[in-house]
Amino acid sequence: MQSNAKLHAYIHGQIKPLEESFLHISDLAIQRGYGIFDFFKVEQGKPVFLEDYLERFYESAMLMELSVPLTTDALKDAISKLIQLNNLPQSGVKMILTGGYSANGYDPGEPNLLITEQPLVLPEQEMIEKGIKIITHEYIREIPRAKTINYSMGIRLINKIKAANASDVLYQQNGVVTEFPRCNFFIVTQDDTIVTPAEDVLLGVTRKNVLKLARQKYKTEERAVTIEDIAQAKEAFLTSTTKRILPIVQVDDMVIGDGKPGEVTKNLLDDLIKLEKMH
Amino acid sequence: MQSNAKLHAYIHGQIKPLEESFLHISDLAIQRGYGIFDFFKVEQGKPVFLEDYLERFYESAMLMELSVPLTTDALKDAISKLIQLNNLPQSGVKMILTGGYSANGYDPGEPNLLITEQPLVLPEQEMIEKGIKIITHEYIREIPRAKTINYSMGIRLINKIKAANASDVLYQQNGVVTEFPRCNFFIVTQDDTIVTPAEDVLLGVTRKNVLKLARQKYKTEERAVTIEDIAQAKEAFLTSTTKRILPIVQVDDMVIGDGKPGEVTKNLLDDLIKLEKMH
Repeated sequence: MQSNAKLHAYIHGQIKPLEESFLHISDLAIQRGYGIFDFFKVEQGKPVFLEDYLERFYESAMLMELSVPLTTDALKDAISKLIQLNNLPQSGVKMILTGGYSANGYDPGEPNLLITEQPLVLPEQEMIEKGIKIITHEYIREIPRAKTINYSMGIRLINKIKAANASDVLYQQNGVVTEFPRCNFFIVTQDDTIVTPAEDVLLGVTRKNVLKLARQKYKTEERAVTIEDIAQAKEAFLTSTTKRILPIVQVDDMVIGDGKPGEVTKNLLDDLIKLEKMH
Repeated sequence: MQSNAKLHAYIHGQIKPLEESFLHISDLAIQRGYGIFDFFKVEQGKPVFLEDYLERFYESAMLMELSVPLTTDALKDAISKLIQLNNLPQSGVKMILTGGYSANGYDPGEPNLLITEQPLVLPEQEMIEKGIKIITHEYIREIPRAKTINYSMGIRLINKIKAANASDVLYQQNGVVTEFPRCNFFIVTQDDTIVTPAEDVLLGVTRKNVLKLARQKYKTEERAVTIEDIAQAKEAFLTSTTKRILPIVQVDDMVIGDGKPGEVTKNLLDDLIKLEKMH
């Protein structure tokens, strides 16, 4: 991240070269992992579904009792200036709000707002065409509705995912699945109902858009999804801002459907790409 | 923390003024709250129970798949130099190991090791003399044996603790209590048995020392402790590096024993202070 000398970031109320963007070590993100963030795509200088992401950013801040130092308009303005200066064809913008410089290493100070922009890394075409294998792990995020910076479990599982020759890890508790560290989970039942977990998940913007698109063609359900439901499913996929929709063809040792990306999944991905372009 | 211009810190392999100690925002502590730490007391330039804390620091690093960039001897040497330079009569030293500068904001880089030293803030005498009130909250830490920097829940509960006019929060799940965000929990039963939770807790160094001291005079048990056990208890207290032993006289609405710090608790605190001085 610090290698790209051309990029700029927003920090301490101003836009600076990314490579000169630092926080003092008394910041509560460093001291106590305390902060929230959000992330959206920018296509040709235009943020995609910006309002949804900003709304969630302020919501996460509220849930973690942090105050965003900018109004929505001022935040939009800062984002706009940063995008213009960096001038990337396709990028991801990340807003981070930390607990701020703490006097005693525990009590929050004035929150620090950071905004960075990076070239967008999309999933490899092969993953979309062949689908991915995922593993499951017993865990539930602590404050699922808030997009906190706490990825202790997800990052600790990176090597376990690699060892299983898998691409991601789906959290489950007592056989009920919830979400990935950075993605939501969907199944397609044998009667073409689109189902996604309702409780203990981050309410993804892509999840919302996929549900909206799905409702135009299929039955949809937001409810508890079990490992047994996955075993019976015709198709499965994940959704995220950068990954859009990725077909899942194997969960632990279970092959989903015929082991290939399904028609409903492909159809929804086509619709999502169209929706993003319309936006 | 950044206000004391005289203090120094260890960062990027060297000792620098604390006020000039910064991490680039690509660090995984800032991006993903990923890191571990430990904290010990220093009395008149001499670390107290240093070996125990260093052992746990390396253990936490291993549990989170982070590699400490210094050997134990080199780490001791850095700590020693920092203590000498800062020259504080009574202090706390904190070692933080982060996930390092991440190229993509998710995969760990080379871990960053920070060491800071601050004047020690001891609990007010009134808390020791009158005991404290605590509340309980349904939660269990994700990786209890690792001292990670993740205090999302603890810090989010600061205002709830204040609103209840309490001093700390004890985590419990389904009526089984575990630990505080930064302290361990003990009860003294009616027959003077010292009991502390065994599972899903950080293995505190003070916890270990108190158990050792308690075994010389009382029966001790490491086992599950329930809310019902607390209701029946004669005394209750918490242990931590800075707080040593603090009597607990109220848990939510339950008054413990006669609502005053108990004799066993006071006795163990006296023994602990003696043990620290001998060390």
